Amino acid sequence: MPDTRRSFLRTSALIAGTALAGARMTRSAAAAPLEIPPTAQQPGRPIPATGYGVPSKFENHVARRRTDVFVNRQNWSDWSMTPLQHQHGIVTPNGLIFERHHAGIPDIDPATHKLVIHGMVKQPLVFSMDDLLRYPSVSKFYFMECSGNTLADWTKAASTTGPADSRAALVRAVGVPVSWLLDEAGVAPDARWVLFEGADGSNHTRSIPLNKVMDDVLLVYAQNGEMLRPEQGYPLRAFIPGWEGNVSVKWLRRIKVADQPWHFRSETARYTDPMPDGKWRQFSFVMECKSVITRPSGGMKLDRPGFHEIQGFAWSGRGRVTAVDVSVDGGKNWQPATLEEPVIDKCLARFRYRWNWDGRPAVIASRAVDSTGYVQPTVQDIMKSRAIAGFVQHHNGVFPWSVSAGGEVRNAIA
Amino acid sequence: MPDTRRSFLRTSALIAGTALAGARMTRSAAAAPLEIPPTAQQPGRPIPATGYGVPSKFENHVARRRTDVFVNRQNWSDWSMTPLQHQHGIVTPNGLIFERHHAGIPDIDPATHKLVIHGMVKQPLVFSMDDLLRYPSVSKFYFMECSGNTLADWTKAASTTGPADSRAALVRAVGVPVSWLLDEAGVAPDARWVLFEGADGSNHTRSIPLNKVMDDVLLVYAQNGEMLRPEQGYPLRAFIPGWEGNVSVKWLRRIKVADQPWHFRSETARYTDPMPDGKWRQFSFVMECKSVITRPSGGMKLDRPGFHEIQGFAWSGRGRVTAVDVSVDGGKNWQPATLEEPVIDKCLARFRYRWNWDGRPAVIASRAVDSTGYVQPTVQDIMKSRAIAGFVQHHNGVFPWSVSAGGEVRNAIA
Repeated sequence: MPDTRRSFLRTSALIAGTALAGARMTRSAAAAPLEIPPTAQQPGRPIPATGYGVPSKFENHVARRRTDVFVNRQNWSDWSMTPLQHQHGIVTPNGLIFERHHAGIPDIDPATHKLVIHGMVKQPLVFSMDDLLRYPSVSKFYFMECSGNTLADWTKAASTTGPADSRAALVRAVGVPVSWLLDEAGVAPDARWVLFEGADGSNHTRSIPLNKVMDDVLLVYAQNGEMLRPEQGYPLRAFIPGWEGNVSVKWLRRIKVADQPWHFRSETARYTDPMPDGKWRQFSFVMECKSVITRPSGGMKLDRPGFHEIQGFAWSGRGRVTAVDVSVDGGKNWQPATLEEPVIDKCLARFRYRWNWDGRPAVIASRAVDSTGYVQPTVQDIMKSRAIAGFVQHHNGVFPWSVSAGGEVRNAIA
Repeated sequence: MPDTRRSFLRTSALIAGTALAGARMTRSAAAAPLEIPPTAQQPGRPIPATGYGVPSKFENHVARRRTDVFVNRQNWSDWSMTPLQHQHGIVTPNGLIFERHHAGIPDIDPATHKLVIHGMVKQPLVFSMDDLLRYPSVSKFYFMECSGNTLADWTKAASTTGPADSRAALVRAVGVPVSWLLDEAGVAPDARWVLFEGADGSNHTRSIPLNKVMDDVLLVYAQNGEMLRPEQGYPLRAFIPGWEGNVSVKWLRRIKVADQPWHFRSETARYTDPMPDGKWRQFSFVMECKSVITRPSGGMKLDRPGFHEIQGFAWSGRGRVTAVDVSVDGGKNWQPATLEEPVIDKCLARFRYRWNWDGRPAVIASRAVDSTGYVQPTVQDIMKSRAIAGFVQHHNGVFPWSVSAGGEVRNAIA
């Protein structure tokens, strides 16, 4: 068998040797027999008796990284980033989904976890996880994005970090519509707001308008085919499609119905937006249309002038991405990028743009448009309606990477 | 804050106490304040500096298991099973996708891996992984099923194992259509077959008709958002939608084009089907329509008579599942199950059926129908056209579970 195989390859090499001259951009002509690799000459590793598989050792660089900017080590109010520049297709693997916790990660036993629904309802109810798992499930693709995603990229500190690490991800969320359970509990006619509270050390709590909750909010217990990971809210979280991540309360233990919002700490001291007049805007829930170039991005290096494909992701909390434009001259001129199917409502969509780099310093950027006609703004556009100060939440400004004459790619802001 | 929270719960308990009497099937009335769990009273675990996340310790039972039936320990020709009974939604996590290797798992360095295309082409070509990653990617949901899936369930040995562990899974495959690369190489007009060879210790090799290859076969390097796992073919595999798993050659290093099949060992000594006349059928590639009940399934126990939801998956290598029927009397009567969206071509579809168990011994089974009108056969139906002997590949017979008066669920065959 090996001899036959080698003779196949020798034949092929002869054909190639006569038919072709020189290498091509994306592949070479077969000019010599392929070596039989060592893996093809001996048995590999056996299957373990039981276990949960892990990535190849050659993929160790594809990891989540905790940021060291703006960290509160007193109560583990912390975050980590998804290496979006290494994502293939549109789904983010569970092991790589960014984290944002207000008091670390609790380990909750699903056998004892309870969810209560109370407040302005006819009949308060308590659910065990077994109860919830008996309902039919709904499974949907959605993006999940931290309100502060790219916040650090707009600071001087970011110049040393660089890569397109992100607090945006795409998941397949599996769970039960909250509306089903609220219908069972019987919501009072004058109810308008719903509270979600977590069983974590910060008792993270948010107020959400009832109409959004009844529209598309899910109680999610599984993601990408398996139960939630501890850092993603195991065993139960709220999932509020298209809105800032922190409202999708993790480790969910309580839902209360009322006629007004509660004005919790995360609705006053945090997760608000400064306005040019010095006031702060409350309840800016929706993550507006945004995009990011992931290849090339900070820390990468273009090996030579010539053809390079620019790749990235775009998304919108208001609907579907309809177009992405790319600039390679710092925003003076824009050309349409190609959107790769599938392009789904409230999901990351992948875009591609073929760039012929002339080898001179360049600034590259992307700009997305969504199905409402909204165009991703420049940072100057944002400053017309909001102040850019302090922790800048909801920063969806067009973000530039610089490419040096040597091909080094860096954050162009810092 | 904790005091306020407790008073919310006290109020709710009062409402519940007056409004309600007794528990309901899927949730209870809130009759007492929820305890504040310990996780809500202290910070949780900090985020590690870097890493790849893993499931909760409370999910350790959700694991892949190596089978000990029909194993060849000489060359690690072995398999492991997906715990399909624990899958949520339709996607199978990478850590839980079944394995079937003919000589163990090789660990291949993508920096040195090469793919050659040769044979009846104008211009043989060699690709590095970097070359392949420069092409636009295509990303699709498909099932992947071993030709021998459920083989062991039809033996006496299976009576002690039981659970709906499976060699069927659903993935989001990401890669490049093989047709793009064959078009570049220039396929000869009289070519009809394509060879795929792996870089594993068995040099696993299969012959595939050219028309299928040009239609929808992918070169897959990523799955569910990240690079393939070693046991799934890292860094490159063929993916042949709807066909038996072993033709989707893993660790792919060679594609050859010819005018006839090669009749490799895996096309003669293996992966063939015995016929009633004693002959063996070669090249039975398509995985026909099939279904499995995952809840309740072997090893589970119904806690009491009354309402139980029967759940499972159905799929077809020829298209879309259009209906699933469920029997609770061993196949005498059938009732339609509900198909849960999304139902996608050549994918696992989830079905549900509401069963009111009277507490007497029962035999439950499911039967799927696909978009070609094909109905999943009984084992008796299969025996009319094929012999059921030896390693039974492509066994898509209606599979029964028995439920005892005590609620124990077992394989009803053994």
